[in-house]
Amino acid sequence: MRDLSNDHRWLSINTATLRKQGDLCAIVDACARHEIRAVAPWRDQIAAVGLDRAAKAIRDAGLALSGYCRGGLFTADAAHVQAMRDDNRRALDEAHTLGAPCLVLVVGGSSRDLPGARQMVADGIGAMLPHARASGVPLAIEPLHPMYAADRACVNTTRQALDICDRLDPHNEGGLGVALDVFHIWWDFEVHAQIARAGRRILAFHVCDWLVPMRDMLNDRGMMGDGVIDIPRLRESVEAAGFDGFIEVEIFSERWWSAPIDDVLTTCIARYRSVV
Amino acid sequence: MRDLSNDHRWLSINTATLRKQGDLCAIVDACARHEIRAVAPWRDQIAAVGLDRAAKAIRDAGLALSGYCRGGLFTADAAHVQAMRDDNRRALDEAHTLGAPCLVLVVGGSSRDLPGARQMVADGIGAMLPHARASGVPLAIEPLHPMYAADRACVNTTRQALDICDRLDPHNEGGLGVALDVFHIWWDFEVHAQIARAGRRILAFHVCDWLVPMRDMLNDRGMMGDGVIDIPRLRESVEAAGFDGFIEVEIFSERWWSAPIDDVLTTCIARYRSVV
Repeated sequence: MRDLSNDHRWLSINTATLRKQGDLCAIVDACARHEIRAVAPWRDQIAAVGLDRAAKAIRDAGLALSGYCRGGLFTADAAHVQAMRDDNRRALDEAHTLGAPCLVLVVGGSSRDLPGARQMVADGIGAMLPHARASGVPLAIEPLHPMYAADRACVNTTRQALDICDRLDPHNEGGLGVALDVFHIWWDFEVHAQIARAGRRILAFHVCDWLVPMRDMLNDRGMMGDGVIDIPRLRESVEAAGFDGFIEVEIFSERWWSAPIDDVLTTCIARYRSVV
Repeated sequence: MRDLSNDHRWLSINTATLRKQGDLCAIVDACARHEIRAVAPWRDQIAAVGLDRAAKAIRDAGLALSGYCRGGLFTADAAHVQAMRDDNRRALDEAHTLGAPCLVLVVGGSSRDLPGARQMVADGIGAMLPHARASGVPLAIEPLHPMYAADRACVNTTRQALDICDRLDPHNEGGLGVALDVFHIWWDFEVHAQIARAGRRILAFHVCDWLVPMRDMLNDRGMMGDGVIDIPRLRESVEAAGFDGFIEVEIFSERWWSAPIDDVLTTCIARYRSVV
């Protein structure tokens, strides 16, 4: 297990963490100012400043990427299937341009027909896989917390995400894996066993914390150390499984969105070194 | 699969559904008025009117029980372990007095040490089991939705609850099983497989619905038919596994708590017959 206490060389900032404080270029500037070495940008934030300008800003700041958010959001609506597939191809192309090590997939929620939605999701990911492999940008399925099953993602556990990987990539040819966020997976009684099973399929590792009480199911995530998640124990498992990439801070929080950008980054760095 | 459309003979009302409209005796009267044949009372509601008076009211109304809520809430606090065990024995004795077919266990949440909490819970249930068997009141472990893992229950999936049953009752000698509530388990990609595995261990089946959006993580459950859960599909699996008991409506909802008691029961009956 890596010792994080001496510096923050493996810290990455997911740009959604700072989405209300400034545009992508302002976020990149702030990260560079704090000697942060990586970011994980969101598509809408990239689009707002333009892909070329964003790519140049990231490159000029010497930043690496820990992922690109996000593809997926598969739909059963026949009229939109092709449009969604085209959009997912564009997401892969953008990720390639930006040099992202993976495209994070949030697969979309479900109405009543969960089994049908899950089949559609597996089909959608399967359809993306050849282009992902050709682009050199692997797809990272992110299981979201079960409280989002109805409206955001119908892949809700590490086991379920890995079952999809096994089905679509039975011979482990690559191009497919998982993004594990402690917020979504910490509660799972078999999470450590599933992390071990995941092994090299772990393409991204996200941290934040689970607050008690939680005021909002979407936008009240906690800063690491302010909640109940045993983050070091999860990081230990993830690193024992072979993951040695960036540790990405992704916090959706009205509280932290209302704080000055430098305060947020200073806190992220301090917590990364002390409680992650 | 039973046809529920013709009457409501298998409907049970969990008394928490009506906890703000009246005391236990008022709830029992209302259920009898609507020709409902069973209730599942909560301990605090029984205690508020007195066990003997409650037992007499239930008996006089000709009501059966579909369960008794609730035991569990195990603690790691050494000073309280014995008190909690004593209280759980009293809960079993009350359940016996009331003629409940099971005592529903909500096992308590966890601070950071989830594995430790889960071990404590298994130990606590194991300690209750001999008395449960002697009382003829089986223990029904209720897995709660993962969004409650931090503060209410660290048993969060059907698989996890059944693993505990297998460990404590490896030879299926009885006295131990699960209470399955669609609100807690509907999202689980392997729920139907786990229900089949549960078989005769299913001691209770609870229904309500999952609203989108949900305004409150605790007290915004929906009336059956108002949300996204495919309740008939879950009931089909539960009954295919061998369950033939009461279908218990348990709704924690500020909205329904503010409605007149007869309106709630009329709606429960109509929805039970049409969408459960």
